[in-house]
Amino acid sequence: MKKMDYQNVKGTQDYLPEAEKVRRDIRRTLEDVFIQYGCQPLETPILNYSELLASKYGGGAEILEEMYTLSDRGERELALRYDLTIPFAKVIAMNPAQRMPFKRYEIGKVFRDGPVKRGRFREFTQCDVDIVGVDSKVAEAELMIMAIDAFKKLKLEILIQYNNRKLLVGLLEEFGISINNMNKTILILDKLEKVGVMNVLKELTELNVERTTIDFIEKFLKEEEYRSFQYLDTFSSLNRNIKEGLKELEELKSYLSYLGIDGECVFNPFLARGLEIYTGSVYEIFLKDASITSSIGSGGRYDNAIGGLLGSDQTFSTVGISFGLDVIYEALNPKERIPNKRSEVDYIIIPMGAVKEALSVATALRRRGYVVELEMSQKKIGKLLNKANKDGVGKVVVIGEDEVKRNQITIKDMNSGKETTETYVFNERQKENFS
Amino acid sequence: MKKMDYQNVKGTQDYLPEAEKVRRDIRRTLEDVFIQYGCQPLETPILNYSELLASKYGGGAEILEEMYTLSDRGERELALRYDLTIPFAKVIAMNPAQRMPFKRYEIGKVFRDGPVKRGRFREFTQCDVDIVGVDSKVAEAELMIMAIDAFKKLKLEILIQYNNRKLLVGLLEEFGISINNMNKTILILDKLEKVGVMNVLKELTELNVERTTIDFIEKFLKEEEYRSFQYLDTFSSLNRNIKEGLKELEELKSYLSYLGIDGECVFNPFLARGLEIYTGSVYEIFLKDASITSSIGSGGRYDNAIGGLLGSDQTFSTVGISFGLDVIYEALNPKERIPNKRSEVDYIIIPMGAVKEALSVATALRRRGYVVELEMSQKKIGKLLNKANKDGVGKVVVIGEDEVKRNQITIKDMNSGKETTETYVFNERQKENFS
Repeated sequence: MKKMDYQNVKGTQDYLPEAEKVRRDIRRTLEDVFIQYGCQPLETPILNYSELLASKYGGGAEILEEMYTLSDRGERELALRYDLTIPFAKVIAMNPAQRMPFKRYEIGKVFRDGPVKRGRFREFTQCDVDIVGVDSKVAEAELMIMAIDAFKKLKLEILIQYNNRKLLVGLLEEFGISINNMNKTILILDKLEKVGVMNVLKELTELNVERTTIDFIEKFLKEEEYRSFQYLDTFSSLNRNIKEGLKELEELKSYLSYLGIDGECVFNPFLARGLEIYTGSVYEIFLKDASITSSIGSGGRYDNAIGGLLGSDQTFSTVGISFGLDVIYEALNPKERIPNKRSEVDYIIIPMGAVKEALSVATALRRRGYVVELEMSQKKIGKLLNKANKDGVGKVVVIGEDEVKRNQITIKDMNSGKETTETYVFNERQKENFS
Repeated sequence: MKKMDYQNVKGTQDYLPEAEKVRRDIRRTLEDVFIQYGCQPLETPILNYSELLASKYGGGAEILEEMYTLSDRGERELALRYDLTIPFAKVIAMNPAQRMPFKRYEIGKVFRDGPVKRGRFREFTQCDVDIVGVDSKVAEAELMIMAIDAFKKLKLEILIQYNNRKLLVGLLEEFGISINNMNKTILILDKLEKVGVMNVLKELTELNVERTTIDFIEKFLKEEEYRSFQYLDTFSSLNRNIKEGLKELEELKSYLSYLGIDGECVFNPFLARGLEIYTGSVYEIFLKDASITSSIGSGGRYDNAIGGLLGSDQTFSTVGISFGLDVIYEALNPKERIPNKRSEVDYIIIPMGAVKEALSVATALRRRGYVVELEMSQKKIGKLLNKANKDGVGKVVVIGEDEVKRNQITIKDMNSGKETTETYVFNERQKENFS
């Protein structure tokens, strides 16, 4: 027999039970919060026409290079989705009768054939909420407080940085960035946290941006006064983008203050967000302790993407937020946390010969709502009790000939050591065995 | 602007909220039952080396034709998984320290580029439970009663047909099927429910099976006596496979009787299950009302697959069951069911100008655990109340200037029509607003 070399494909991994239990908790916590916030569930396919995903309202050139492509037996040109935003926009485009505003969530796998590092994989899970049909910045505020509530439940302390794409574009215009260089400049600024000011300026020089412009940008990146709405407002009369961006920011800020979350939400005028589709607010979520430096969630407003996909001039006010399950899992770093001693298993049933009777007791307890493990190994009873103890299982029931004969079971509480006896009628039909 | 032609890829579809809520219920119900039965969660990648998925212990030649293949930037030859069994076997092979017995569940997307029909897609979701390390047929019995409990919770009446691969092979040997024709014959028999006896016999003739053998098989398929263990036992002395198969069936039957589920579990000696990997028990789950004729779940014992994948002679007793989320969703046929009048939304908050105050009330109620929708459309109040009524939302709160001035909110119960007033302190910091 040929022995195969088992390994996972680069950028993919298995999650074994201990890890997957944590991921299940994250997934359910996020989903429950999404539901509380009135979000509707949506499920879209992983397989898409590559033409759809490559549209100019998709992820932009950088992501397209990372798109996995394939074809089916009908020779259709397909690709694996790289985010949940384009499939959402497609659903809106395909369902013109959908009632607006529409707030949906989707939790699902996405794929990017890109660089791999800690918390960053080629196959990963995104958890997205998007709202279409609301122009008011109350939509952004609701997504931001939703993020704060969600991470509170996950016991992670976060900071949300926010900015406005119009303001950033307006400032860059005033500094002398040409229309042609605008998107490239924003992409370079997006790497600020990762590469630092000097490397940003170096890359701008390589882009042949003029010396005076670079000097302006350097000042912008270094001086605190740019973080004040009042100071920025002095540019408002010069540039319409700056004026509109500031107005939107002030509206958003008023909601954040009213909700009392302006301590956790910090205005950052350099925050860029790489994607071209953003048209207004942008935000990124970071861990307060910076134990992971990349963002653990992000989003913003993209009012032109759905209309653009539709090929119409109609504007669809759209704002979204996306949480990365894998990076949140890394942030929770379960290895370093105190392990949860209590098992999720309520009862372990150990048969001593009486296998079918043990299965009957397990079934009866499960039907009462308990989580029950039927021990099926042939190990010695002492070993099994030790294992149950180590795993933190609450209660153990051993079923042997005696129990069956006496129609009684003994439940041993592993914490207190106490034993209690219950009547259990062992019979041929699984019916009202407990009396 | 170019107008794109939006459609989903053949064999894929979107699930809009009404559908997805039903699917979410199915997924959570199954997962909760799996947890109750002591199953551990596992998550494996969709992207796999095609060599792994094409191994002889994989899905067999028929499935391999339906495998989606692709490559990544490292020119690795990859494929999308077509089931959750091979990825599970791979995890066991890669983790020799895994404690046995090991019972895991996984719910995830799988892909098959095959024919499309009702309840059958190219991208679909499987919900699998497998147990490795248990030789006793109590494992099969536990999976079968788990299926019965799960479908009871889903309010679907089911029948489980079961058989044993050894028995079937033994009988076919006795009828004169050669070793070369064995798997092909089993594949033909597997289509019995779909194509009927005449077509099965026709296909066997095309396989050049001898006339006498076909006559035996015809008799086998038509005569009731083959459904009795006693009758089949008369062949036991002739054939070791028949003898062993019957012994295993009798063991399994003893558990099913003891649990009182032998009414829902019916022995069917013709049940074939197409996959080559099965080595003992096989079973398929059908709707009692046969509103969908194909099975809605299935499984069996495959003791050689993991050892085979490992390239070792070691036997890994393994038994599994798989539920098809998409076909269960079809079975629940939500369109034909009485729609659930009660919405999942507890409160709708409607701002009359007072947007940030409305968001504050929504947040406070959410933090009390309620599902709350903040109405963000600019529609007239009468329309919004009608919509809330139609959607079956329990309670509506309208927030206008008056409410803010008086620090009071009025909660209207849409069922009783009653209104209650509560004190709510509107202030700049989201803190203890309810008094």
